[in-house]
Amino acid sequence: MTTTLNVSLGARSYPIFIGTGLLADPACYRPYVAGRQVMIVTNETVAPLYLGAVAGALDGLRVETLVLPDGEVYKTQAVLERIYEALLGARFSRDCTLVALGGGVIGDMAGFAAACYQRGVAFIQVPTTLLAQVDSSVGGKTGINHPLGKNMIGAFHQPRAVIADTATLNTLPDRELCAGLAEVIKYGLIRDPAFFDWLDTHLDALRARDPAALAEAIRRSCENKSEVVAADELESGERALLNLGHTFGHAIETGAGYGNWLHGEAVGVGMCMAADLSARLGWLDPADLRRTRDLIARAGLPTAPPPELSAERLLDLMAVDKKVLEGRLRLVLLRGIGAAVVTDQFDPAHLRATLGG
Amino acid sequence: MTTTLNVSLGARSYPIFIGTGLLADPACYRPYVAGRQVMIVTNETVAPLYLGAVAGALDGLRVETLVLPDGEVYKTQAVLERIYEALLGARFSRDCTLVALGGGVIGDMAGFAAACYQRGVAFIQVPTTLLAQVDSSVGGKTGINHPLGKNMIGAFHQPRAVIADTATLNTLPDRELCAGLAEVIKYGLIRDPAFFDWLDTHLDALRARDPAALAEAIRRSCENKSEVVAADELESGERALLNLGHTFGHAIETGAGYGNWLHGEAVGVGMCMAADLSARLGWLDPADLRRTRDLIARAGLPTAPPPELSAERLLDLMAVDKKVLEGRLRLVLLRGIGAAVVTDQFDPAHLRATLGG
Repeated sequence: MTTTLNVSLGARSYPIFIGTGLLADPACYRPYVAGRQVMIVTNETVAPLYLGAVAGALDGLRVETLVLPDGEVYKTQAVLERIYEALLGARFSRDCTLVALGGGVIGDMAGFAAACYQRGVAFIQVPTTLLAQVDSSVGGKTGINHPLGKNMIGAFHQPRAVIADTATLNTLPDRELCAGLAEVIKYGLIRDPAFFDWLDTHLDALRARDPAALAEAIRRSCENKSEVVAADELESGERALLNLGHTFGHAIETGAGYGNWLHGEAVGVGMCMAADLSARLGWLDPADLRRTRDLIARAGLPTAPPPELSAERLLDLMAVDKKVLEGRLRLVLLRGIGAAVVTDQFDPAHLRATLGG
Repeated sequence: MTTTLNVSLGARSYPIFIGTGLLADPACYRPYVAGRQVMIVTNETVAPLYLGAVAGALDGLRVETLVLPDGEVYKTQAVLERIYEALLGARFSRDCTLVALGGGVIGDMAGFAAACYQRGVAFIQVPTTLLAQVDSSVGGKTGINHPLGKNMIGAFHQPRAVIADTATLNTLPDRELCAGLAEVIKYGLIRDPAFFDWLDTHLDALRARDPAALAEAIRRSCENKSEVVAADELESGERALLNLGHTFGHAIETGAGYGNWLHGEAVGVGMCMAADLSARLGWLDPADLRRTRDLIARAGLPTAPPPELSAERLLDLMAVDKKVLEGRLRLVLLRGIGAAVVTDQFDPAHLRATLGG
C-alpha cells in the first residue's frame, strides 16, 4: 500500500510517497525527472543494498552514479566538490536531475549540489533512514557543515518528489533507527499531543520494526512537518518550532566532534534539556517532563550530554547557532506536551542549571 | 538627481538607485539593512577609494569589513570560503546583511555567500563598475567559477537594494568602461532598437564619460534588464535573450584562461559572432551586421577571438555551457537589431564558419 502526501508550496509543491518497495518503481520517478541526464548520489553503505534497484527504475535514461563515503564527517565542502566535479565531468546540463539515495547527509549534500549546480537543477530524494524519511527529506533544507559550525552553509531547495521506501528500514542499524525516533517524538512534543500518546502506546512496536507502525509513524511525522513547512517555507515563524532540541543538540554534536554523536541522539538530549528548562520555568508539568524523558529513553536515546561537555562550553557553542537573533538566545521550549513556543524570555540562570552548571 | 527603478518580483522586489554620490548616503542603505550586523565585502582596488564612505553611511551599526584580492581569477571557492570564515568568525547571525562594494566579481561572490550563509541572509549591492551597474547587479544571479567551467556554481538571490553611484565610474580604468559598454549595447541589440540608435549617436560621449550620457545609458540598460527579469526570474524563457554573445563569450574567456579577457570584451566578440551567424543564416541584414560590428569596435572592444583559439576548441568549450539543452546547442541570435531569438535551428556548418573553421 502506498500513501501519498502532497507538500503544498505553490509551484514548488511535491509528493511524498510512503510504502514498501517503492524505490524500485519507475512510476515514482519518471514524472519528476527533468531531461534525460540523471545522477544518483549515494554512499558506500547504501550502494551495495539499493543502487542497482534505483538505477533499474531509471533504465532508459542516461544514468551516472557517484558513491561517496558514509558519515556526517563527510558532509563537507570537499565532498560536495566531488559532486560538482562528477556533474561537470559528465557535462550535465541545466536540465539534469540529481537523485539522493541515502540518509540525511546524502540528501543534504546532493540537495545543496542540486541547488547550486548551474544555479539550480531538479532533485529527487530517496531517503533510506528513518531520520531522513521523517525529517530531512521534507522541507527543502540542504547544506553542508563548516569547521566553525554545523549546517552553516546551505540553501532552501525543494525536491521534485520524495520516495520513502519503508523496506529500506529493514537494513538500518538499531542505533540509527533510534536516532530517527527522536525526530518522530519531536512532532508529538511540538504540536500533536494525540501523536505523542500514540507513540507512548506503540513505541515498543516501532523498536521491534513492526512495518505497519513504522509506516504510520512516518506518515504522521511527514504530515506534521509538511503542514508546518507549507505554512512557513523560509522558516521565519512557526517552522522554527521544528528546531525543538536542536540548538542544544547542535552544541552537543559540535562539542563532541562531528560524527561521534548521531544527530537524532543529540536531539534526544536536546529535547530533554528543552523539557527540563520548560519545567524549571514552571511551564511544563513535572509529570509531563517525566513522560517526555521516559519516552526518549524507551526510544533507546541518551537523555544527558557527555560529561566532558561543561555548561560553559555548551553555552559558548550555542551562541553561534542560527537561532541567535541580535545576540539574544532564542529557544524552542514547551508550554505543555504538543505546545511548543519560540522564546527568549527565560532566566539565563535556569538555562545554566539545565546545562549542568 | 537620483533615478529610482523598481524591479518587480513580488515579495522580493527591490529598488535600483542611480545617481551621483549615493554611495555615501545613509538613506540608500538604512531601510534595506536587516538586523544590526553588516559586513562590507570589497576588494583591494575599491577599498582605498570608497570603503570609508560606505562604512560612514552605515555608522551606528556593527560594521565589519572584508577586503579580498581584485580580479576574476579570485572568483573561486577558496575566496568564497574567506567570506564564510569572516561571517562565522564574527558570529554573524541569520539576520545579518552583506554589502557588496565593487564590480561583478565582488557582487557575484558576496551575493552567493549571502545566498548560502545560514541558507540565506540579506544583501545590498553597491556596484562600482559600469558592467556591474548595468548587468550583474540586476537579476539576482550570484556564483563562482569552477576550474571546469565559468559561473557553474551559484544561486539566484535577489538583493534588497542596488546603489549605482555614477561617480564611481570616474575612477574606472578605460578598459573596464569599454567592457561595460558591451552589455549596454547588448540591450539595444536584443530588444530596444531605439536605444541602439541612441547609443550610435552618443557612443563618443559615453567613451568621454559624459555624466548625463552615462546615467541615461545605465538607466535604460537597467530598465531593459529589469523588465526582462521581472517577467522571467528563473531564466526559463525571455531571460535567456540576455545571454546574447555569452555562449561564445564564455568559451573565449575559458579558452583564454580566466582573467585574461574581461567578461565584456569576450561578450563584445560573442555579439559579433552572433550577428555574423545571424547574417550567414540570412536573418540579419549585411548593413545591420556592419552597424553592429562598428558600434562594438567604436566602444573600444575586440570583434574577433584570439587567433590561438581554433573553431574546434571553441566548439568544445561551448558544449559545456549552461545553454546546452539535451545535447543541442541553443544560441541567442538576431532576427534584426532589437529582435533577438533563442534557437537551435541553425546549420552547424554556418556556426563553424562563424568560429573561423
